[in-house]
Amino acid sequence: MEFTVSQIAELLNGKVEGDGSRKVCRLDKIQEGSEGGISFLSNLKYEPFLYTTEASAVIVGNDFQPTKPVKTTLIKVKDPYSGFTQLLEAYAQMKKTAYSGVEQPSYMDDSSQMGENGYRAAFSYIGKNTKIGNHVKIHAHAFVGDNVTIGDHTVIHSGARISEDTVIGSHCEIQSNVVIGADGFGFAPQEDNSYKNIPQLGNVIIEDHVSIGANSTIDCATMGSTIIKRGVKIDNLVQIAHNVVIGENTVIAAQTGISGSTEIGKNCIIAGKAGIVGHIKVADNTTIGANTGISKSILTPGKTIFGYIGMDLKDFLKSYAIFRNLSSLQDKVKELEKKL
Amino acid sequence: MEFTVSQIAELLNGKVEGDGSRKVCRLDKIQEGSEGGISFLSNLKYEPFLYTTEASAVIVGNDFQPTKPVKTTLIKVKDPYSGFTQLLEAYAQMKKTAYSGVEQPSYMDDSSQMGENGYRAAFSYIGKNTKIGNHVKIHAHAFVGDNVTIGDHTVIHSGARISEDTVIGSHCEIQSNVVIGADGFGFAPQEDNSYKNIPQLGNVIIEDHVSIGANSTIDCATMGSTIIKRGVKIDNLVQIAHNVVIGENTVIAAQTGISGSTEIGKNCIIAGKAGIVGHIKVADNTTIGANTGISKSILTPGKTIFGYIGMDLKDFLKSYAIFRNLSSLQDKVKELEKKL
Amino acid sequence: MEFTVSQIAELLNGKVEGDGSRKVCRLDKIQEGSEGGISFLSNLKYEPFLYTTEASAVIVGNDFQPTKPVKTTLIKVKDPYSGFTQLLEAYAQMKKTAYSGVEQPSYMDDSSQMGENGYRAAFSYIGKNTKIGNHVKIHAHAFVGDNVTIGDHTVIHSGARISEDTVIGSHCEIQSNVVIGADGFGFAPQEDNSYKNIPQLGNVIIEDHVSIGANSTIDCATMGSTIIKRGVKIDNLVQIAHNVVIGENTVIAAQTGISGSTEIGKNCIIAGKAGIVGHIKVADNTTIGANTGISKSILTPGKTIFGYIGMDLKDFLKSYAIFRNLSSLQDKVKELEKKL
Repeated sequence: MEFTVSQIAELLNGKVEGDGSRKVCRLDKIQEGSEGGISFLSNLKYEPFLYTTEASAVIVGNDFQPTKPVKTTLIKVKDPYSGFTQLLEAYAQMKKTAYSGVEQPSYMDDSSQMGENGYRAAFSYIGKNTKIGNHVKIHAHAFVGDNVTIGDHTVIHSGARISEDTVIGSHCEIQSNVVIGADGFGFAPQEDNSYKNIPQLGNVIIEDHVSIGANSTIDCATMGSTIIKRGVKIDNLVQIAHNVVIGENTVIAAQTGISGSTEIGKNCIIAGKAGIVGHIKVADNTTIGANTGISKSILTPGKTIFGYIGMDLKDFLKSYAIFRNLSSLQDKVKELEKKL
Repeated sequence: MEFTVSQIAELLNGKVEGDGSRKVCRLDKIQEGSEGGISFLSNLKYEPFLYTTEASAVIVGNDFQPTKPVKTTLIKVKDPYSGFTQLLEAYAQMKKTAYSGVEQPSYMDDSSQMGENGYRAAFSYIGKNTKIGNHVKIHAHAFVGDNVTIGDHTVIHSGARISEDTVIGSHCEIQSNVVIGADGFGFAPQEDNSYKNIPQLGNVIIEDHVSIGANSTIDCATMGSTIIKRGVKIDNLVQIAHNVVIGENTVIAAQTGISGSTEIGKNCIIAGKAGIVGHIKVADNTTIGANTGISKSILTPGKTIFGYIGMDLKDFLKSYAIFRNLSSLQDKVKELEKKL
Repeated sequence: MEFTVSQIAELLNGKVEGDGSRKVCRLDKIQEGSEGGISFLSNLKYEPFLYTTEASAVIVGNDFQPTKPVKTTLIKVKDPYSGFTQLLEAYAQMKKTAYSGVEQPSYMDDSSQMGENGYRAAFSYIGKNTKIGNHVKIHAHAFVGDNVTIGDHTVIHSGARISEDTVIGSHCEIQSNVVIGADGFGFAPQEDNSYKNIPQLGNVIIEDHVSIGANSTIDCATMGSTIIKRGVKIDNLVQIAHNVVIGENTVIAAQTGISGSTEIGKNCIIAGKAGIVGHIKVADNTTIGANTGISKSILTPGKTIFGYIGMDLKDFLKSYAIFRNLSSLQDKVKELEKKL
C-alpha cells in the first residue's frame, strides 16, 4: 500500500515541511531508512541520522528545528513517538482488514456457518456443524474440522489445522501451520512389548485474546479439555500436551514443551526451550528461564527458576560459576591432601 | 454424534435406571460431568460425585445401590470400567469411520490407485504411480507424492506431507503437518566457505502400527532408507534425520532429535527434548531421560541414561545434588585452607 | 524412473561387462544392493560385497578385474567414485526438473507473474503483486502471499508458507511446511497483567543459495527485515525470531532457536538444539555445540563454545569430567575435615 506524505500528515493531524507528494510504502528505522520509507525522530540522540537518512519522510516534534539541511520531508506532530505508533497500528489494521470475501475454490460443509465480514481464502476447508463468528479470517489451506466454534475477530493463518470439537474464542491469532487438537500421546503397553493406542476423545479450548505461534502443537485431551486461558501468548514450535491447562496471561517462548496434565498458573513467563514434566502444578507469577527443566511442582508463587533441573536462579548461577572452574576446586583439594 | 442413554445401554448390554430418553454426546469425568455427558463410577472413592454430577448418565456396577437420591440416569453393567472403555473405543472407532468417499476438488494422478472404503478429502493431493490400500483416510490438504505406497487402515491427517518414494505400512497414524521424506541435511564444504547440496536420493520406510505426532519431521536417506520399525510411537515436533533406524516398539516423546545415521534399538523409551548425535548405536531397552544429550554409543541394553551429557541416572542425580549446593563444598575447602 | 544398464554406461562414457539390458531404478550401497539397484566399487575394502551383491549393476574402475564370478553387470569407467557422483547428480537433477507446467485447480492472483519453465502444483496459492522468476517450482499446498519476490531456480515445497512482503533469492530450497514471515513474538505488558500485540510490520529477506529445513520458522521483523544471508543452510524445526541476521554460509542444525534481534556472523557452525538469547552478536567462524545455551555476545571469532551456559569447549569438558564424579570430590573434603 502506498500513500503520499501529505495523506499521512493528515492522518496524524500533522504539518508537512518539504515535498508532500512523495510516496511512502514502508516503515523504517531512521538509521536504515531508504526511498519509500517513513521514520520518526523522538530521542534526539538519533538526530544525526536525520541529516543522512534516505527515508522519504520523518515524523518530528512540532518544536523541532533542524540544524543542518535535510533531504527528507518532515511531518511535524505533537509527539513523534505516539504519531509513529499510531501509524504502526493503522498499518497493521489495514493489513488485517485487507482480506475479505470468499475466494474459489474453497470448501465449507452446508451444515456450517460463518458470520459477517469474514474471509475464506481459496483452498480453505471448513467441516461439518462448525460455527464461525463475525470478522473472522480463514487463510489459504487452513483446515477447520467438524463441530468447531470460532469467536469474532479471530484469524486462522495459512495451513493451521483446527481439529474437530475445538473451541476458539474471539480476537485470537493462530499462526501458520499450528496444529490444534491432534491426538494426545497416550499408549497402553501390552505384554508383547507393543503399545495400544488409548483413544483421545477430549478437545482443546482456547479462550479470548490468545496468540499461538507458527508450527506449535496443542494436543486434545484424552477426556475433557486441554485449556489455554484468556490472554495467553505462545511462540513458535511450542508443544502443549493433552489435558494441560495454561493460566491467564501466561507467556511461553519458542520451543518450550509442557507434558500431559500439567497446570501452569497465570501471569507466568516461560522462556525458550524450557521443558516441564507431566502431572505437576506451576504456581502463578512463576518465571522459568531458558532451557530450564521443571521436574516437580512449584507451589510458591512468584519464584524465578533456572537450570538443567530447575532451581532458584541465584543458587543456580552461584553453583554454575564454581562449575565453570571446577578443576581449580579439585586442585585445591589435591593440594590439601598433599599437605596433610 | 448424539445417542440416547437407552441406545448406549443396549450397546453395553446394560440396564437403564431412570430416564433412558436423555441425550448423550460426550464422555466426561464424573467430577466434571455436565448436561449431555456420560461418565462411570468404578472406584467407590468417587461415589460422592454421583450425587452431585450434572452428567446425563453414569455407568455403575450391577450390584451398586445409591445411598442418596441421584439426578443422573444410571446404566447398570457387570464391570463399569470395562463398559466405559468399550464406549471409548466404540466412539473412537465411529470418529474414524465417519470419513468416507471423495470430496471435491481433490487431486489424484490417473496413474495412482486407492483401495476400497477410503476417504479422500477436498484439497488432498496424490501424485503419480502411488498405491494406497483399503480403508485409508487422506484428510484435507494432505500431500502424497509420487511412487508412494500406503498400507491398509492408515490415516494421513490434514497437511501431512509424504514425499516421493516413501513406504508406509498398515494401521499407521500420521498426524497433521508431519513431514516425511524431506531432504536430509547434507552439504559438502567448498574451498570458498560455501556449501554444495549433497543429493538426497534415498527414501523413508515406515512399518505397520507406527504413530507419528503433529509437526514431526523424518528426513529421507541420502542413499538407502530411513527406517521406522513396527510399532514405534513418535510424539510431536520430533526430528529424525537421514538414514536413522528406529527399532520396534520404541517410544519417543516430544521435541527429541536424532541425528543422521544413528540406530536406536527396540523397546527403548526416549523422553522429551532428548538429543542424540549421529552415527552411533543405542542398545535395546534403553531409557533416555528428558533433555538428555547422548554423545556416544550405548552398547549395554537396559540402561537408564540421564543428564546434559548422558550418564547413569543415579550417578547424575548424586552429582547434581552436590552441584545444587556447590558453594558449600567450596566454602569447606576454603575453611580447610585457612586452618592449614 | 527406470533405465537400462547400457543407457547408464553411455551417460558415464563407460563400458558394459555382462547383461546391458537389465533395468535399474535406484542407487544402492554395495553392501545393501538388491534387484534394480546400481552401486559402485571404489575402495577395494568393499570388493567382497561385489561377489554377493544382488544389485543389478556395479560401477568399477577400468582396470578392475574380478577374482571370482560376479552375478551383477559391471560398468567400467575411469573413476568409479566420480562416475557414481555424476549419476547421483544427474538423478537429483532429473527429479527436480520432473515437475513443470500448471496443475489445476491452482490459484494465482492476476496481478502476480511467474517466469518461464516453472511449476505450479494443484492447490498452490499465489497472492497479489508477487513476482516469481524462471525455473521456479511451487509444490502442492504451498502458500505465497502478497508482494513476495522469488528468484530463479528456487523450489518451494509442499505446504511451505511464504508471508507477504518476503524476498527470496535464487537457487533456494524451502522444504515442506516451513513458515517464513509469521508475526514476531512481541507483546507490550499492560497494567492489568494482559499483553497487547505489538504490530509486526517488517519482512524476511532470504538471499541466494539458502536451504531451509522442514517445519522451521523464520519470523518477520517488527520493523525492517529478518535477514538470512547467501549460502546459509538451516535444518528442520529451527526457530529464527524477528530481526535476526544470519551471516553468509552459516550452518544451523535441527531444533536450534535464535531469539529476537541477534546477529550471527558468517561461516559459523551451530549444532542441534542450541539456544541463543536475543539482542547479542556471535562473531564469524564460531562453532556452537549441540544443546548449548548462549547468553551473551561472542566477540572473538573462531571460538568453539559448549555447555548449558556456553563456555570454552575444553573448559566445559574438564569441568563436566569432575562433575560426573562429584561425590568423590565431596568425600575427599569430608575426609580432610575429619583429619583436621
